[in-house]
Amino acid sequence: MGVTRLTIAYDGAPFAGWATQPGLRTIQGEIEAVLERLFQRRVSLTVAGRTDAGVHAWGQVAGFAVDSDPPEALVQRANSMLPPEIAILDAEPAPDGFDARRDARSRTYCYWVSAGQVRHPLERDRALWWPYPADREALEACAALLVGTHDFTAFTPTQTEHVRFERNVIHAEWRAHPLAEPFKGELLELWIEADSFMRHMVRVLVGTMLEVAGGRRSTDDFKSLLEGAPRDRAGDTAPAHGLYLASVRY
Amino acid sequence: MGVTRLTIAYDGAPFAGWATQPGLRTIQGEIEAVLERLFQRRVSLTVAGRTDAGVHAWGQVAGFAVDSDPPEALVQRANSMLPPEIAILDAEPAPDGFDARRDARSRTYCYWVSAGQVRHPLERDRALWWPYPADREALEACAALLVGTHDFTAFTPTQTEHVRFERNVIHAEWRAHPLAEPFKGELLELWIEADSFMRHMVRVLVGTMLEVAGGRRSTDDFKSLLEGAPRDRAGDTAPAHGLYLASVRY
Repeated sequence: MGVTRLTIAYDGAPFAGWATQPGLRTIQGEIEAVLERLFQRRVSLTVAGRTDAGVHAWGQVAGFAVDSDPPEALVQRANSMLPPEIAILDAEPAPDGFDARRDARSRTYCYWVSAGQVRHPLERDRALWWPYPADREALEACAALLVGTHDFTAFTPTQTEHVRFERNVIHAEWRAHPLAEPFKGELLELWIEADSFMRHMVRVLVGTMLEVAGGRRSTDDFKSLLEGAPRDRAGDTAPAHGLYLASVRY
Repeated sequence: MGVTRLTIAYDGAPFAGWATQPGLRTIQGEIEAVLERLFQRRVSLTVAGRTDAGVHAWGQVAGFAVDSDPPEALVQRANSMLPPEIAILDAEPAPDGFDARRDARSRTYCYWVSAGQVRHPLERDRALWWPYPADREALEACAALLVGTHDFTAFTPTQTEHVRFERNVIHAEWRAHPLAEPFKGELLELWIEADSFMRHMVRVLVGTMLEVAGGRRSTDDFKSLLEGAPRDRAGDTAPAHGLYLASVRY
């Protein structure tokens, strides 16, 4: 059984998320269909991060095992058959039994916020537009509080498939870049690495941190949410179109 | 008569270009309709660059004169009524008789090329994907040749509204940035400033320079095109979706 590990990038906008759903256009569905044509047999992908509808990826990782060698020029041939919103960046042999989800040691997500008085028409599907105050120090203080093991119950929907709500955040940081002329404002990027993430976790974290950055919530209140507070104490879920699965570590 | 100068950004993808055309969605048409609602009278825009269908802008400049003061918070109110693909970045008083086209001393355009083996799904509407060789020195040599006054007949369609084919290129330069991980390759940007541009001029220049960069045409041949050669001696017209009107000087 040859096992192959794929690195995948996609624009999540036109898809109902990663995971196959009957009757819906999904990233898993598109890639499995192409691989099945190339290998002439059923292909089943494991994946590092089951991204939600509208969420993008630069470095998603998926794996599959088939009882034949990969065809020549697998990446190029697959990309020529995939829709323009999905590209396989790399395909490499993986150890027997490789499972992209179970074997991942951590995932890194990035969330883009375009902070400025005027919306940026060319970033409207790539970043959340935030025309309100965005105190950098407050954002950085929140990011520092995230590092370590916490109970993130407040940051995932109440109706949930999760049974364990503790996650270990390895790294969390906000980076800021001035928008290029003639735009005024900043692109704020949250980079967050954790062992794993719950559904909507990064988006509720961003929505809540932006309340702190806008002066509508204190850092202390944010801190108190990290000890298993209920969902309704945290902020809004930031929209999917600002979120990117950046990379996965094995 | 109060004269107002607007700085405008847009994603050109959904529009049939800047200039109003009956029955088509255009940037001029959208903005004039919004201004007419705000001023409660007919508004006619002059413009620095009549961009073609699909061409984007960061710093387009347009002007209009009306016999009333601008309403309060003109920019915010106009943006709240404009479609998400268009934003007014700034509105400022201009001298009487200001004409955004006639008074412009130069325009700067930028063209984005995503040079790499694998297409970038998140840049597919923002940059031309170029999976072929792209010799940086050849591109820079071509850019250097462009500076000065030349006859650009080869770089505009044969069927033309232009009567004068000489243009003065003030600055031309290729800049390269490595694509962010995990993408492999470079974003190549042509920055070109000239007194004015003919229809398709930047796009035919890019299409032809990429032939030189790919080894299919010599720099000397490129040079010989700048002396009024016919259109059919130059290269293909690069697609509209990589082109940005960056700024205008007055």
